[in-house]
Amino acid sequence: MNVFRVIQLSDIFSLLNGLFGFSAILAASSGDIELSVLLVIFSVIADGLDGFLARRTKGSPLGTGLDSLADLISFGVAPAVLVIKTFDVSPLILAASMIYLNCGILRLARFNITVDNNKSFEGIPITASGLAVTAGMLFQNLEISLISMLALAALMVSSIPYPKVRDAKALLAFGLVLLASACIILFWQDSSVSGILILIAMAAYMASPVVFYAYK
Amino acid sequence: MNVFRVIQLSDIFSLLNGLFGFSAILAASSGDIELSVLLVIFSVIADGLDGFLARRTKGSPLGTGLDSLADLISFGVAPAVLVIKTFDVSPLILAASMIYLNCGILRLARFNITVDNNKSFEGIPITASGLAVTAGMLFQNLEISLISMLALAALMVSSIPYPKVRDAKALLAFGLVLLASACIILFWQDSSVSGILILIAMAAYMASPVVFYAYK
Repeated sequence: MNVFRVIQLSDIFSLLNGLFGFSAILAASSGDIELSVLLVIFSVIADGLDGFLARRTKGSPLGTGLDSLADLISFGVAPAVLVIKTFDVSPLILAASMIYLNCGILRLARFNITVDNNKSFEGIPITASGLAVTAGMLFQNLEISLISMLALAALMVSSIPYPKVRDAKALLAFGLVLLASACIILFWQDSSVSGILILIAMAAYMASPVVFYAYK
Repeated sequence: MNVFRVIQLSDIFSLLNGLFGFSAILAASSGDIELSVLLVIFSVIADGLDGFLARRTKGSPLGTGLDSLADLISFGVAPAVLVIKTFDVSPLILAASMIYLNCGILRLARFNITVDNNKSFEGIPITASGLAVTAGMLFQNLEISLISMLALAALMVSSIPYPKVRDAKALLAFGLVLLASACIILFWQDSSVSGILILIAMAAYMASPVVFYAYK
């Protein structure tokens, strides 16, 4: 099969997501935390556009596979590398990063074999957890980072239903949060403001199963 | 679905493959090329054991997904990071690494949607190309690295049939090459000998479609 013949526009955004994630790994490995966070934000935007386009078109045969693979780079490997490069390497940090990464891999592998449910995901999506871990690095607090990484790892492999946000207004609001966060990192001295913005949005999503249950 | 209930021994080796790959990324990002190569060799061994176990047992529902995701880390991301960390970053190196990574992602996504053919793979497997790129870094030759990366990227997305090596003697011989290479890196001064060993084995495999065609 000629992959270049079956590839679609949504797939290009998947590949772009992966490339931003790869660049985030490189930025983290050079110790540039802010650039790495910025690139993961770009990955989330590319991932969102990929999903939006894939839902509007018939979907590409390569779509699901490409999406998972790109997500693994941007929201699995990149946050794990960023955490290790932000703090001094210790067995504890290394173990937490590896647990996070493994739970992310298991989350993606499970998603690929479960029947699509239009309303909810099983376990928190890796995009949300990767963004939360990454944004948390703007504060460089070791204890909170360790605890939240392990909590997010557990939420990923859990069976807690997380809502699929398809509401145009909610998505637009989240897109604006991401753009504002990116602008703050780029043009403002205090990038932790951007961390606060993202973490509030992510905390709301992390808690959303409660709301989801109530309105089901 | 409780992932920890469906997980099998072969899946543990997939996760181990991914963890070695992740460690290879960390080693590369700290500039330790030899350690990074060693860890990618370990990934290949874990990947081989995973495949061996998966064929002997009924196979795990998570198996194919986990295998692809781990392979992406170890033989897609890790070699691409290693190349960038081995040479001074330049637009050319960055572009070649990103092309390599994207072709690896496309190769894995295509593999997941094509019907299993017992005899051959479509395009060179990412394990072989990742190992070749990684081992090549022991020589630190910029031009050869660039050319071989792009050639391997093209072979991955090509439709050239690559034989699935299942012959016990051939696999044992390759395992011994890997073990010898690992020992040379660990205990000998000149790690490039290990690079030569691996590259000879990989060159033979790269050329194998010719033999494959002849005996088909």
